[in-house]
Amino acid sequence: MVRGGSTTTGPTLAAVAREAGVSVPTVSKVVNGRQDVAAETRRRVTAALDRLGYVRRHRVDDTMASPRLLDLVVYSLRSSWSGAILHGVEEAAHDAGLEVVVSAGLTRTRDGRPEHGWLDKLTARGSSGVLFNLAELTPSQYAWLDQHRIPFAMIDPAVEPAPGVVSVGAANWHGGVTATEHLLSLGHERIAVIGGYQSKLCSTARVAGYRSALTAAGVRHRPEYLRCGNFDEAVAHRRMIELLDLPEPPTAVFVCSDQMALGVYQALALRGLRVPDDISVVGFDDLPEARWATPALTTVRQPLSEMAGTAVRLLVRLMAGEQPDSTRTELSTRLVRRASTAPPHTASESRR
Amino acid sequence: MVRGGSTTTGPTLAAVAREAGVSVPTVSKVVNGRQDVAAETRRRVTAALDRLGYVRRHRVDDTMASPRLLDLVVYSLRSSWSGAILHGVEEAAHDAGLEVVVSAGLTRTRDGRPEHGWLDKLTARGSSGVLFNLAELTPSQYAWLDQHRIPFAMIDPAVEPAPGVVSVGAANWHGGVTATEHLLSLGHERIAVIGGYQSKLCSTARVAGYRSALTAAGVRHRPEYLRCGNFDEAVAHRRMIELLDLPEPPTAVFVCSDQMALGVYQALALRGLRVPDDISVVGFDDLPEARWATPALTTVRQPLSEMAGTAVRLLVRLMAGEQPDSTRTELSTRLVRRASTAPPHTASESRR
Repeated sequence: MVRGGSTTTGPTLAAVAREAGVSVPTVSKVVNGRQDVAAETRRRVTAALDRLGYVRRHRVDDTMASPRLLDLVVYSLRSSWSGAILHGVEEAAHDAGLEVVVSAGLTRTRDGRPEHGWLDKLTARGSSGVLFNLAELTPSQYAWLDQHRIPFAMIDPAVEPAPGVVSVGAANWHGGVTATEHLLSLGHERIAVIGGYQSKLCSTARVAGYRSALTAAGVRHRPEYLRCGNFDEAVAHRRMIELLDLPEPPTAVFVCSDQMALGVYQALALRGLRVPDDISVVGFDDLPEARWATPALTTVRQPLSEMAGTAVRLLVRLMAGEQPDSTRTELSTRLVRRASTAPPHTASESRR
Repeated sequence: MVRGGSTTTGPTLAAVAREAGVSVPTVSKVVNGRQDVAAETRRRVTAALDRLGYVRRHRVDDTMASPRLLDLVVYSLRSSWSGAILHGVEEAAHDAGLEVVVSAGLTRTRDGRPEHGWLDKLTARGSSGVLFNLAELTPSQYAWLDQHRIPFAMIDPAVEPAPGVVSVGAANWHGGVTATEHLLSLGHERIAVIGGYQSKLCSTARVAGYRSALTAAGVRHRPEYLRCGNFDEAVAHRRMIELLDLPEPPTAVFVCSDQMALGVYQALALRGLRVPDDISVVGFDDLPEARWATPALTTVRQPLSEMAGTAVRLLVRLMAGEQPDSTRTELSTRLVRRASTAPPHTASESRR
């Protein structure tokens, strides 16, 4: 059942079978993700695999006969975000002699988690390894991957992954610091922030970077300047309107995604405010779209393709039975200065 | 070697072996894309397969055990164009119980054609079927696919595909008519067009639509108003500058891709011209980026995800040994009116 076959390091299937008190074919079924095994039997075999330290390893010579498959599970394929991730994964996988199977499984359930049926399919086929993008796995999904000895890694996980899980992300906190320092250096002090989800890892780190930069500069943090935009363009639009309706509106806003910055641009246009003359805007991501905005959006670039490539290379090491030195890798972010930021408008400042 | 196994309809492998004067294992090797067959033997077997009308068909019950793989070969994964294609392919494939292997093989050679090594990999793995996007295959690549009996279809082929090849595209000619009629209806007569590649199928059809609309409206076609932009933003920028430097510059321009329209916007901003007050712009594609432009771009929407889904469903029929009613399917395009078009400026018109 396993694509390309597999060999074991450490204990043989026979040893695992003895330990679990079952037959060798039963152990084989569990390892290869077959469904025709009773739950209790599966539990006993899994426990035995764990005790004996079983590691599944694909044979090297199979790589030549038939390229192995790496699975990429993304949240959605519609955005240029996933385009950048896919580009990086495909290129690094090609270099490693792997082919990429793409699933948009994460969009298939209401709670944004990959459905269990998808994991069944993956184990039936015998995936060499899985990369999840923007994922939030349940404990039972972690257990499933572990039980079937399928190596996996995460690209920009939505929440803190389980201990020991390998993940690659951007230096989100540092990106938040950079964006805010840029606005401070232009002379802004009334700087608002529109974050993503309150609960998401990447978003909280960016907002924390914003607060750290303000604190370091001795600028008071105003709670009313912190808004959650849920990474949604329309929500960000509303949050910007709320900020403009404050008694003391901000002169600059750090928006935690380019997509949300588009909503902010629209809100500002609606109120007849010019960017950057009346208000400065900094985004986050540096999607291709940031160049399309007028004025072109100053934003914090996160290296999505490089993050994806790094995740592939880490996964390849996991597939070879190695353990990376560190479970969390962060690639650096940098400010891309375009035309949406300028010193605060004097008239606006004089209203303080 | 063939993933999921295969059965034949029509002649058996034994009949083919008799016809070709070789052994059954040799026929099996050729059918399954193995490399260890002499060229002359392969040629004889292929000829026998053709004479006897051999069709490879995957067993239905294998779909349950292990999902079959559909290959998608795209030009590049960097653009939101491929995002829309991928989204449509993944969704339709999921519905058909297929999984999608993505390759950006078309970017790997200088001439923009998929490298032959990629096809080797594909046959070694035993692909159920292949979809090519924006591809231009060589005669030897067509022969290779045919010889290995790998069903394939094309999404928006770059050039006219070989006879009998199944392809899905947009109604490009009609889209060109629609864009031009829209500008004519606003009162424009000095309408320029910036096309893609002179040789590419989609581009020539759009420009032909432009000319047909002008002719139907009794408006003279000016050869100096027709420019080739090679689907490149920077080239389109230069072409727009050339158009503006004409003794009688156009009052409107139909740009044959949204990406090129961005270059046109930049050229117009450089010359201090406002869209749509000084000049109207219509794009083609309706990529997500079209909404980001200021003013938002009026454009001809081609239904990329729907085209991709249609191609998957046609490929599934080919994989089942059926022949579609028609080899070329065109999905309709439609004008999306945004803010980049308006009646011609009177002052500008008075310069005539």
